[in-house]
Amino acid sequence: MNRVHNFSAGPAILPVEVLKKATEGLLEYKNKGRSIAEMSHRSPEYEAIDQQAKSRLTELLGLGDDFKIMFLQGGASSQFMMAPYNFLREDQTADYIDTGRWSNKAIKEAKLFGNVHRPYSSSDSGYDRVPENHELDLSDDPVYVHFTSNNTVAGTQFPSEPETDGVPLVCDASSDFLSRPIDASRYGIIYAGAQKNVGPAGVTIVIIRKDFLNRANTENVPTILQYQTHTEKIFNTPPAFNVYMVNLVLGWIQDKGGLAHFKQYNEEKAGLLYDEIDKDDFYRGAVEKDSRSIMNATFRLPSEELEQQFLEEAEEHDLYTLKGHRSVGGIRASMYNACPRESVETLVNFMDDFRAQNG
Amino acid sequence: MNRVHNFSAGPAILPVEVLKKATEGLLEYKNKGRSIAEMSHRSPEYEAIDQQAKSRLTELLGLGDDFKIMFLQGGASSQFMMAPYNFLREDQTADYIDTGRWSNKAIKEAKLFGNVHRPYSSSDSGYDRVPENHELDLSDDPVYVHFTSNNTVAGTQFPSEPETDGVPLVCDASSDFLSRPIDASRYGIIYAGAQKNVGPAGVTIVIIRKDFLNRANTENVPTILQYQTHTEKIFNTPPAFNVYMVNLVLGWIQDKGGLAHFKQYNEEKAGLLYDEIDKDDFYRGAVEKDSRSIMNATFRLPSEELEQQFLEEAEEHDLYTLKGHRSVGGIRASMYNACPRESVETLVNFMDDFRAQNG
Ligand SMILES: Cc1ncc(COP(=O)(O)O)c(C=O)c1O
Ligand SMILES: Cc1ncc(COP(=O)(O)O)c(C=O)c1O
Ligand SMILES: [Mg+2]
Ligand SMILES: [Mg+2]
Ligand SMILES: [Mg+2]
Ligand SMILES: [Mg+2]
Repeated sequence: MNRVHNFSAGPAILPVEVLKKATEGLLEYKNKGRSIAEMSHRSPEYEAIDQQAKSRLTELLGLGDDFKIMFLQGGASSQFMMAPYNFLREDQTADYIDTGRWSNKAIKEAKLFGNVHRPYSSSDSGYDRVPENHELDLSDDPVYVHFTSNNTVAGTQFPSEPETDGVPLVCDASSDFLSRPIDASRYGIIYAGAQKNVGPAGVTIVIIRKDFLNRANTENVPTILQYQTHTEKIFNTPPAFNVYMVNLVLGWIQDKGGLAHFKQYNEEKAGLLYDEIDKDDFYRGAVEKDSRSIMNATFRLPSEELEQQFLEEAEEHDLYTLKGHRSVGGIRASMYNACPRESVETLVNFMDDFRAQNG
Repeated sequence: MNRVHNFSAGPAILPVEVLKKATEGLLEYKNKGRSIAEMSHRSPEYEAIDQQAKSRLTELLGLGDDFKIMFLQGGASSQFMMAPYNFLREDQTADYIDTGRWSNKAIKEAKLFGNVHRPYSSSDSGYDRVPENHELDLSDDPVYVHFTSNNTVAGTQFPSEPETDGVPLVCDASSDFLSRPIDASRYGIIYAGAQKNVGPAGVTIVIIRKDFLNRANTENVPTILQYQTHTEKIFNTPPAFNVYMVNLVLGWIQDKGGLAHFKQYNEEKAGLLYDEIDKDDFYRGAVEKDSRSIMNATFRLPSEELEQQFLEEAEEHDLYTLKGHRSVGGIRASMYNACPRESVETLVNFMDDFRAQNG
């Protein structure tokens, strides 16, 4: 098999070791005469996977005993409504930092449940940056502060957690989950679709702090939309094969050296690409330097025609899915944990050549 | 690989041909240098899968042009709240036929949105039957009539659609979806988790009639919980690998001869087992004969001790996951489409021997 260089924003590249292992479990799990996809979610086999994945997440993120972990369905988009459904009542206010397309979608759903205050928005400048702490204008008594840690479309990322004076953070970490260490104590909820850094699409990881969970509103909330429905036991049939694959990816992350390793590795990869972008004016980074994402690098070429040509020629060098999100255009290279440095090097070499020919 | 006889109620046995094919797509899809799980859901490759799966369902179920098909997440349990969220308003009534554990869970969620009337319940007799049409006491003007076409726990099944005088049916078909032809024109919604007859857990198939959809309530319903959010385009990242596998299973169903073939095949398999149960008094069917399910056969032995012994000895003959649901006990053999006749024959032979030794 000749693997291409895969810069897809998600569903995204997975470690090839994990894919190989998963094909085994898909055909026959541990010599049990059946696939992991053919086993009950109440089987000891699946329960062991569920538990191991939770232990691994606890260790990787340093969650200690304070958090509950859930493997849900519906994507990060379902969390846009589930978080406020559980935590935001009609007379209350939640603060939503507005740094792009995904923040906006989260805000739209939150407004169905209570008041939304934006302590900051980079909308006016085309979402080209994330705020510094002194720019945050928090409301008086927000039930939580929501932020999008990495903005997949714009290509910006918070360098670290925004400062909220003790108010719990609710974080859409879809596109930088497990890419670097975090300060878990700052979070009420961390949620992420698996399909960027952690596995195939179809499972949503939700981590909730126990004392925050205690404040949840359960009255008139459909059972399956209550977080506490999922924290003590597996409520209904989970996406078992997807969780199995997530568990393999988590094991792979541990083997490679955990989040400290990936922070360094991801910064190195992004550094290679941003250095190339910054060499001269042919390539232009799409966002402010201090806000650049180490996961999704967005940049422009001198014209849309050149961008189109760039994308076509890139594929001839096995460099795939570099097209920017349809809402913003340009080029986007997503370099999640499983993206090898070699792919970024190949991209940078191609960029050099392309500029030499067209610059 | 030595495949065991797998009678799991779900996640359940899958066609081994499909498992083999899926391992290929999981490693590398169509010589594209990457897994189907590593491709964007906006890629032409995934869109072709989505479209093919929908065409196959349309053809298999004879849906014509009148229906929309969605591949959602959350399980059938999520439809328990989503159907009333969209269709049942505070001052309205929906009728829910109560034939067991799953009907009850659906009723619980519906009550959050409007009035629920039970036109029939077999609760008093331990859910040992489904109603005949003349036993249905429908309310005056229900917005829909909900029924559970196959009761996975009790082991009962509606022989055909309940008569509702033109009121659209909303059907939880989780455990007999695609096991036999249906009269599609009777349904407003058909929903089913994939993990019994159609694929791995993690995708929920929802089929909705267009004119019924037009009556949906959209005010104050979170975007992702509105059916119409999902009927025109793919709203957010779908469980792509799971849908890919569903599409393979649908192709397999077509190749085998479609729903007419499976109706006959499933009736034959169930016939073998029920004949064995009815031979004498050692085995006792758990439900009324006219209500028996061709998917999940439930039966008892003379004592719980013998049932325990039966389950243990069965495994020695590679007969797995025959234990009844924890809420009712006894034995349950689930014989979905992918369960080979040979597995049922092996089970029946074992039952003969077990009775000879212990009867
Ligand atoms: C930051 C962010 N949030 C939310 C989403 C939506 O996730 P899903 O498609 O799993 O609902 C995405 C998808 O790309 C994302 O990048
Ligand atoms: C008839 C029926 N409805 C609903 C469910 C719940 O499905 P899920 O676990 O996909 O939510 C099941 C699960 O076994 C079922 O058999
Ligand atoms: Mg964004
Ligand atoms: Mg430059
Ligand atoms: Mg039941
Ligand atoms: Mg008998």
